[in-house]
Amino acid sequence: MTNATKHIALVCPGGPISRELADNVADIAQKEHGDRVRLHFHDQCFFSCGHFAGTDTERSEALLAVANDPKFDAVWFARGGYGAARLDEQLFTKLNDYANRKTYIGYSDAGFLLARLHKENIGHPVHGPMPTDLPRNNGETAIKRVLEFLVSGDTSEIEPNALSGKPVAAFNITILAHLCGTDWLPDLSGHVIMLEDVAEYLYRIDRAMFTITSNPKIANAAGIRLGRVSDIPENDRPFGESDEELIKNWCARKNIPYLGRADIGHDADNKIVPFGATLCA
Amino acid sequence: MTNATKHIALVCPGGPISRELADNVADIAQKEHGDRVRLHFHDQCFFSCGHFAGTDTERSEALLAVANDPKFDAVWFARGGYGAARLDEQLFTKLNDYANRKTYIGYSDAGFLLARLHKENIGHPVHGPMPTDLPRNNGETAIKRVLEFLVSGDTSEIEPNALSGKPVAAFNITILAHLCGTDWLPDLSGHVIMLEDVAEYLYRIDRAMFTITSNPKIANAAGIRLGRVSDIPENDRPFGESDEELIKNWCARKNIPYLGRADIGHDADNKIVPFGATLCA
Repeated sequence: MTNATKHIALVCPGGPISRELADNVADIAQKEHGDRVRLHFHDQCFFSCGHFAGTDTERSEALLAVANDPKFDAVWFARGGYGAARLDEQLFTKLNDYANRKTYIGYSDAGFLLARLHKENIGHPVHGPMPTDLPRNNGETAIKRVLEFLVSGDTSEIEPNALSGKPVAAFNITILAHLCGTDWLPDLSGHVIMLEDVAEYLYRIDRAMFTITSNPKIANAAGIRLGRVSDIPENDRPFGESDEELIKNWCARKNIPYLGRADIGHDADNKIVPFGATLCA
Repeated sequence: MTNATKHIALVCPGGPISRELADNVADIAQKEHGDRVRLHFHDQCFFSCGHFAGTDTERSEALLAVANDPKFDAVWFARGGYGAARLDEQLFTKLNDYANRKTYIGYSDAGFLLARLHKENIGHPVHGPMPTDLPRNNGETAIKRVLEFLVSGDTSEIEPNALSGKPVAAFNITILAHLCGTDWLPDLSGHVIMLEDVAEYLYRIDRAMFTITSNPKIANAAGIRLGRVSDIPENDRPFGESDEELIKNWCARKNIPYLGRADIGHDADNKIVPFGATLCA
């Protein structure tokens, strides 16, 4: 633990956020940690270009600028929502030593970036809540969890199964399926892979699990843990298997160990999962 | 052209069909071609097990049985809908010389099977309408198109761009994205790839195109042609690019030629695309 102020830069690789949300999250940081933390929302967070928080170039440049800036200790993705995969992938070749020391935190669509950073062995990618989680039931808890993790650096907010010393990675199921077969997917051999999703039909979860468990970079994982799959829409007829049953079935079919549940998901309880190996403090 | 009766076996690798639909399609075949064609609906078409037309084993065994049976000239997938990716992949090692002579026709989710057959160089995979297209506006035309193609073997119902002599493949965009990074995806280097989709948000089409255009087995394609993307749901805010614009953008970004439109889609006009190279008769 250190008394120096932690400077956290926020950018939006996908959709934009409102100034009001930014102010509310900054207020929580101030109340909880005073001078020990300062949030820096990049203007790009509030840009709008069709579906996205600015053009692909604007979003790429914002991420590159804050990642390479020695002033910031961490980059916090302020919102998921599709868009991170459209960033200019040349940016990964332009990241400097300062970028390499930083923590990058987010989940859902931001998983595209966590994957690519982990693959390139750049910085410290972390699966965890984002500012857009604030409006959720008990959402302030999720915001405080990330701030506590970033400010104090302790491990109390980390998903307990991520503290075994084995390398770990966490992904949204749909995002991980779309990473398969691309140059953005890290080799997850030996990793415990934690999975979660939201608002997908079970047949889509099952289809994504076909892709995930059929991938050679995932085939030799230490195992899969299932977080929460929430807000599953009703199919026209029942799928016939629960979310956990279908995950177990794909693991069994492809000889990947199923290790049980994980405490992650699109909700306020979403615990923090640092990629790679973390030992219990 | 031959006067011998063509025997066409029908199975359902995904969801089931009704007896009524089977009877209606058989009636069209009888009226159009009399003794020149006979449709054989496998009982498995009418099984039900949760989301699927029978268990994974039942669906796998039905396909294997009709593929290996010398009595049948072709296998027509009667319905798409998720399920083909769950078939026992050992079946591809059990297909015999009779299976290797057959035509396999379907689209949408059946694309999982067309892909794997093309990859294993087994038989003649063909992207084309299925019996479940009958209830569509002008759906009888789609059924007659397949029957004419299978009975007379002429090329008048083939998508014109598939007759250049270049190897061709056609896929639903979402299905092709889920094939990426699996052992089911054929090497599509040198192929003209025709794409279509239905009822997907544009951001999902865009995400799938990231995966597709980032795959090394697709990077050296002769080019991409876009069929119809129909019934696109309204997003909470406009995506900002049309379906063709986003496909063009991904092609440009990944240096894959965009070749223009293709006459395929989830509709009655869906033309026939035999995989591989076909020369204009």
